[in-house]
Amino acid sequence: MTLQAVGIIAEYNPFHNGHRYQIEQARVQTGADVVVAAMSGNWVQRGEPALMDKWQRTQAALAGGVDLVVELPGAAALQPAHLFAAGGVSLLAALQCRWLVFGTEHPEMDYEQLMAHLPTDPATFKRFDQTYASLFQGYLREQTGITLNAANDILGFFYALANRRQGDPLTLLPLPRKGSQHNDTTIETATAFASATAIRSAALNGEWPALMPVVPTTTLDLLQTAQLTSWEDFWPLLRYQLVSGDVADLRQMYQITEGVEYRLKRAALTSESFATFMHAVKTKRYTYTRLQRQSAYLLLQAKPLEMQPQPQYLRILGYSAAGQAYLHQIKKQVNLPLISRADRDWQKGPGEFDDRLGALRTLITGEDQDYGRIPVKKTISE
Amino acid sequence: MTLQAVGIIAEYNPFHNGHRYQIEQARVQTGADVVVAAMSGNWVQRGEPALMDKWQRTQAALAGGVDLVVELPGAAALQPAHLFAAGGVSLLAALQCRWLVFGTEHPEMDYEQLMAHLPTDPATFKRFDQTYASLFQGYLREQTGITLNAANDILGFFYALANRRQGDPLTLLPLPRKGSQHNDTTIETATAFASATAIRSAALNGEWPALMPVVPTTTLDLLQTAQLTSWEDFWPLLRYQLVSGDVADLRQMYQITEGVEYRLKRAALTSESFATFMHAVKTKRYTYTRLQRQSAYLLLQAKPLEMQPQPQYLRILGYSAAGQAYLHQIKKQVNLPLISRADRDWQKGPGEFDDRLGALRTLITGEDQDYGRIPVKKTISE
Repeated sequence: MTLQAVGIIAEYNPFHNGHRYQIEQARVQTGADVVVAAMSGNWVQRGEPALMDKWQRTQAALAGGVDLVVELPGAAALQPAHLFAAGGVSLLAALQCRWLVFGTEHPEMDYEQLMAHLPTDPATFKRFDQTYASLFQGYLREQTGITLNAANDILGFFYALANRRQGDPLTLLPLPRKGSQHNDTTIETATAFASATAIRSAALNGEWPALMPVVPTTTLDLLQTAQLTSWEDFWPLLRYQLVSGDVADLRQMYQITEGVEYRLKRAALTSESFATFMHAVKTKRYTYTRLQRQSAYLLLQAKPLEMQPQPQYLRILGYSAAGQAYLHQIKKQVNLPLISRADRDWQKGPGEFDDRLGALRTLITGEDQDYGRIPVKKTISE
Repeated sequence: MTLQAVGIIAEYNPFHNGHRYQIEQARVQTGADVVVAAMSGNWVQRGEPALMDKWQRTQAALAGGVDLVVELPGAAALQPAHLFAAGGVSLLAALQCRWLVFGTEHPEMDYEQLMAHLPTDPATFKRFDQTYASLFQGYLREQTGITLNAANDILGFFYALANRRQGDPLTLLPLPRKGSQHNDTTIETATAFASATAIRSAALNGEWPALMPVVPTTTLDLLQTAQLTSWEDFWPLLRYQLVSGDVADLRQMYQITEGVEYRLKRAALTSESFATFMHAVKTKRYTYTRLQRQSAYLLLQAKPLEMQPQPQYLRILGYSAAGQAYLHQIKKQVNLPLISRADRDWQKGPGEFDDRLGALRTLITGEDQDYGRIPVKKTISE
């Protein structure tokens, strides 16, 4: 029997009841045998360190129903929506997934129609690539009268676009999102669903009773025992980097343009915390997320050449028995190297950036993230 | 009346009785009206952060008899002996000093004779420039049978050499050193003199009674109230830099050659302290000082082009009334810009590296080192 896989592009930061519901729906609506997640590693799309490390989040994802977790490399994860989407679609396609499911506020959205209105002039594309979603939203509104608002709708559109550009390797299945909005900051106690933003905030404040109804037991256990990280942990290091790097070097980093390096450098010397720093550099011109991602690029010393979202290898983070069987089935057809145990070789091109991402977390938590680590095996099912 | 100045190249890390004795002798033996010190800033020649900052050390030097303190820029101070000497001589010559006094174990040394035996083949020079004193010592022993041993004799020779190469702007006056050897690690209680090494160690351990006989009151007061820094304060930052930088970038830094970047990077991830790190990277091939200087270059992100020991400007750190009069006298003949109050302009070439050196200390102590600071005026005389 040939196993069929449905793919999900996720961060699981952290894994919550909404994610579990989505996995169940993915299985039911496609009839897939295996659920594959392309998951960000230790840094997530918004330009933040993940609350828990990629191994802990893999454990939670497996307990919650995922069969195979593969790392979305940092060069794809730490990107604006259109590049994040392109990296995720490419990873799931490489893993021979048949479907891609994703949550949206408007599952009825006609992506075909939206795509028909994309600018065809490459110059427009370049401009749109530079300023991401907001510029594109404006363009679309102008051309079609349609307003893409919710973050997940924008992401959904970029999944559809990436899939089209890559030759339609996946069948898209938008699913209605369950529960609260993406960025809600409080947990509604009457429901079993809350946004990841609200959950992270509650976890950092140790509000365990509030979390109990909205996350699976494995997530709750992990949150209570893991060393949770936030930007504040990394602030002294970014501050040093901004202060000791000369402006010409800072400008070599990915997306450090328009003289923002001066602004960031000036604010660094006087800011005692990351929160103060962000407050000092924020203007109408730059979104919070963009500045936070630029901060991450500087901290990680990410060079433009390293930030190609197209995955160069498949790093296996964990699997269930079914996931392992699926891996066995596809491994001869996979074009990219499969990595189940990384060695530390800084000469190698594509793995080096992710090694640095992991090592940086190791500096804070003391737990090696890559070297010698092997995939998590599913032990609990909830 | 034209004021005549005698120059000293110093670190005053910290200022002790031996320094005070040297200043008295310099005045007596030359009859100079003014004593000028070219002093390292916040990082010293051995590749370490200075115990106290350059302003505190200036205060101690003025109290101890110096009339004018000018900063030896980081690009000259953080260098092996021959480049440190070249930078110091050049700075004192720019300041129109007539004499250079320096301490030596063997004041009778015939520098003319030693210089006559210098290799004339540029290829030999290059080799000697790469590996500094040790290679040169070997060469000299081979050619002349003379062994240069004590650190101060080697430095003295390089002062003479730099002076010769720069057209003999200064008259050299070697003075016998008073008291203990340069690197003695304990304080002999029977004498008023101790090495700076022993004094730093006692200060970091808070052994004030041991220090009382060997340093002037101003130094003792400053040591007891200042925030003293050592490499351990900077270790988390260097560790981050080694871990997050890719090897190609690390290799761009000054004097990072022969693959040492791999060795340093590997040791960084597992070393919790600078002491552990140095222990892990030390081999027979590399001296401790060389590795420590390489560590400083990496922490400071020093590029080869920035490390030209020839001073590009004169940063005034402090003066007595006589020092101020002397500055007034020479200022029309001085070829380099005189800086008495720095502004923060990261576009400017030569000042930028020193601004970064200062800012790095600011990260640890919270006290701005350059921006808006004005020269210390002498208030106490001991």
